[in-house]
Amino acid sequence: MRPYKHPAASELSLERVLYALSDSIRLDIVRHLARVEAATCGELDGGRPKSTVSHHFKVLREAGLVLTENTGTIHMNKLRRADIESRFPGLLTAILAQHASA
Amino acid sequence: MRPYKHPAASELSLERVLYALSDSIRLDIVRHLARVEAATCGELDGGRPKSTVSHHFKVLREAGLVLTENTGTIHMNKLRRADIESRFPGLLTAILAQHASA
Repeated sequence: MRPYKHPAASELSLERVLYALSDSIRLDIVRHLARVEAATCGELDGGRPKSTVSHHFKVLREAGLVLTENTGTIHMNKLRRADIESRFPGLLTAILAQHASA
Repeated sequence: MRPYKHPAASELSLERVLYALSDSIRLDIVRHLARVEAATCGELDGGRPKSTVSHHFKVLREAGLVLTENTGTIHMNKLRRADIESRFPGLLTAILAQHASA
């Protein structure tokens, strides 16, 4: 399986990061990843259909928020916290500090 | 002309605010409003077509970021900074602190 493409930290766009976080499923995934070292897609999908979740992971990867690595047959996901912090200081911390919307 | 509807501060959604700020035109409008007390749509449209800009103002109003008031025949826009701050402490400051994307 081909490795996923991920943008370099220097290529990240504020608008794209905000868009990626403007969806409650994607925000949940990022909140979960902020609490753990790494997680499989299955641990993060909340029982949602794979096709739906795959799309959300793609948006998160393309925004530079999530790194997905193929480890054998499973995909491990990590939050690119250091990259986001270096490009947008304080941004992710401020967003993750907010309570989930009602 | 009917007054515009604006959500109460307690009704604001994090995802909706992030979505509203995920577009470079809307982000520019909010950056501009953060520097001034109030501005007309014409002062904020950057020469863009009125139909385009009207849509962006609607998204910003519905997210609770912008208050539009009819003052005679002109519309004055203000950033709802205190409302956003009360609902999402530190969020807007962190976003506005970022450099505009390349």
